[in-house]
Amino acid sequence: MIGRFMQNTLITWPSIRRPYSCGDKKIFTAAEVPIEWDVVDVTPVRRPDGKFGIPQAAIDSVNTNKIGLKGPLMTPVGKGHQSLNLALRKEFNLYANVRPCRSLAGYKTLYDNVDVVTIRENTEGEYSGIEHEVVDGVVQSIKLITAKASTRIAKYAFKYAQNNNRKKVTVVHKANIMRMSDGLFLRCVRDVAQDYPKIQFDERYLDTVCLSMANSPEKFDVLVMPNLYGDILSDLCAGLVGGLGLTPSANMGQNGALFESVHGTAPDIAGKDLANPTALLLSAVMMLRHLNLLSHANIIERAALDTIKEGQHLTGDLGGQAKCSEFTDAICVKILAGR
Amino acid sequence: MIGRFMQNTLITWPSIRRPYSCGDKKIFTAAEVPIEWDVVDVTPVRRPDGKFGIPQAAIDSVNTNKIGLKGPLMTPVGKGHQSLNLALRKEFNLYANVRPCRSLAGYKTLYDNVDVVTIRENTEGEYSGIEHEVVDGVVQSIKLITAKASTRIAKYAFKYAQNNNRKKVTVVHKANIMRMSDGLFLRCVRDVAQDYPKIQFDERYLDTVCLSMANSPEKFDVLVMPNLYGDILSDLCAGLVGGLGLTPSANMGQNGALFESVHGTAPDIAGKDLANPTALLLSAVMMLRHLNLLSHANIIERAALDTIKEGQHLTGDLGGQAKCSEFTDAICVKILAGR
Ligand SMILES: CC(C)[C@H](C(=O)O)[C@@H](O)C(=O)O
Ligand SMILES: CC(C)[C@H](C(=O)O)[C@@H](O)C(=O)O
Repeated sequence: MIGRFMQNTLITWPSIRRPYSCGDKKIFTAAEVPIEWDVVDVTPVRRPDGKFGIPQAAIDSVNTNKIGLKGPLMTPVGKGHQSLNLALRKEFNLYANVRPCRSLAGYKTLYDNVDVVTIRENTEGEYSGIEHEVVDGVVQSIKLITAKASTRIAKYAFKYAQNNNRKKVTVVHKANIMRMSDGLFLRCVRDVAQDYPKIQFDERYLDTVCLSMANSPEKFDVLVMPNLYGDILSDLCAGLVGGLGLTPSANMGQNGALFESVHGTAPDIAGKDLANPTALLLSAVMMLRHLNLLSHANIIERAALDTIKEGQHLTGDLGGQAKCSEFTDAICVKILAGR
Repeated sequence: MIGRFMQNTLITWPSIRRPYSCGDKKIFTAAEVPIEWDVVDVTPVRRPDGKFGIPQAAIDSVNTNKIGLKGPLMTPVGKGHQSLNLALRKEFNLYANVRPCRSLAGYKTLYDNVDVVTIRENTEGEYSGIEHEVVDGVVQSIKLITAKASTRIAKYAFKYAQNNNRKKVTVVHKANIMRMSDGLFLRCVRDVAQDYPKIQFDERYLDTVCLSMANSPEKFDVLVMPNLYGDILSDLCAGLVGGLGLTPSANMGQNGALFESVHGTAPDIAGKDLANPTALLLSAVMMLRHLNLLSHANIIERAALDTIKEGQHLTGDLGGQAKCSEFTDAICVKILAGR
């Protein structure tokens, strides 16, 4: 099952091959997903230059296989190690972070009308990593916005909307404050919008979007924005439907794609068979769609959503009492029954 | 009504001279508030240096009177004029933006358990205004964090918590990403927290806070954070309780304070006696408390909240049919009855 691979482990695989059976991947096995896994560990190692980083074997694996699935990784605060999540996004130039967020039937929250997709520029903005201390006690961090990356993410967003039958794209910005940087981002998205006359186009301030998202999420559809705004807004949207335990995420690049659950590592429950694997499983479903394994994706997604809807085998974080293995077993039963 | 008479020491709306058709200063008159108003217009004028800016008379008025109340101002997008709101904050070095946000009995939203105060650093961060185009299509915006301003806002937040009987202060940051700038902010708040051992202290990532705020706002109390995060989070919190039409705001400085409603100017309803004055009225209540006119503040606040609770004289944005003048009349009736 998926939950087990949740810590410091990156799973990658070569192009589709024969069915591969492994006790730990029972859902994919039950659905006869024709994938062979290359399991790699991304626990940071000391590189030849003395810095800590992703092991070369993991990098090679993604470079060879082009597609990966990963569980949550810990990010330490403060100076020192760089975030592993970010290192992976950078290493493979995964420029588009795609996070669909939908109210799930059966898992009740205050909202039942959320169906949005945040598309986040994933390579620059506030995540440039360029910072310096000008004098003691005075720090500058640089938000970097380029026309190239802004246009690229805008194109991704509109193409995504078109391919997924979405009606509207909202660009989220603070160009009233960061006139030059967000202004550039905004202009790039506007330009791309011109090429998609059938998709409704909307411009909103980030603060306004946060307010409206909490009030009337049904007003939103696809949203495209600079890096940090996507970090914030995707979490907010996840909050509306029940949290990061339920929402998938994809990091898409020119030459690779990395699908991941975004929630924390929850070291307190590690190894106790208590984790909720839904986010990782739905990320895997996105991955299957990306691989054009549509019927496999649909079968697994349906089984997972139905299991949540019925509510008898939910994990503790969803208000149930089931172990992770019981939840995944219930999903497998549905898959096998439907075959 | 508020709009016109609120200008205790400040400020009219640019270009809309008579925004409301209601009677002058009724609520404050009803409550016998001992304030003399200096009404000034902040419509930008061309300064001697050729740039547009706040008229000198308005600046002088605030400098003399130290306290102002203002309605919403429009901010144009893109290059050109600077935001008037920001210009005012800068001009008077109003370093602390304080936005209390409480679920209002009678105005039903999805949440009934919101009672938080966002305290936002108001002078630097992402609002530094320092931006440049490095080469064509490559823009850098600078987020500026100083120990001085960070410590100042931290002290403000903890003192506020202490004075207002609040139990907890949460610092909101992304020091996992902006390690140096948010890292500095975080360290400054940590240092100040040491001096307030009786107030619970909590550190959270911005994205996590957005998620949790939508899920379980009762977990939060006072929150302190850099500029942009406050912009976002205060709007989100306002969204939970019904929007910016209901939430007050204060900009506090060493030598002055400016109380304001944060919602837009709604030019479509200008002059139609339809505006909801609650945000401005509650801001005025904050102002009265600041002036130590506590019983006046309490009387007005109670009358306003009771009027909302009873729900018979709500303006259109609150789901009612009352005109602005009917709503304010209802408040006045309560004030007069209670005297
Ligand atoms: C873990 C952290 C570095 C990351 C981010 O800030 O992007 C996370 O919040 C996310 O959204 O993937
Ligand atoms: C109008 C705008 C300049 C302002 C801001 O971004 O601070 C507003 O959103 C606010 O929160 O007061």
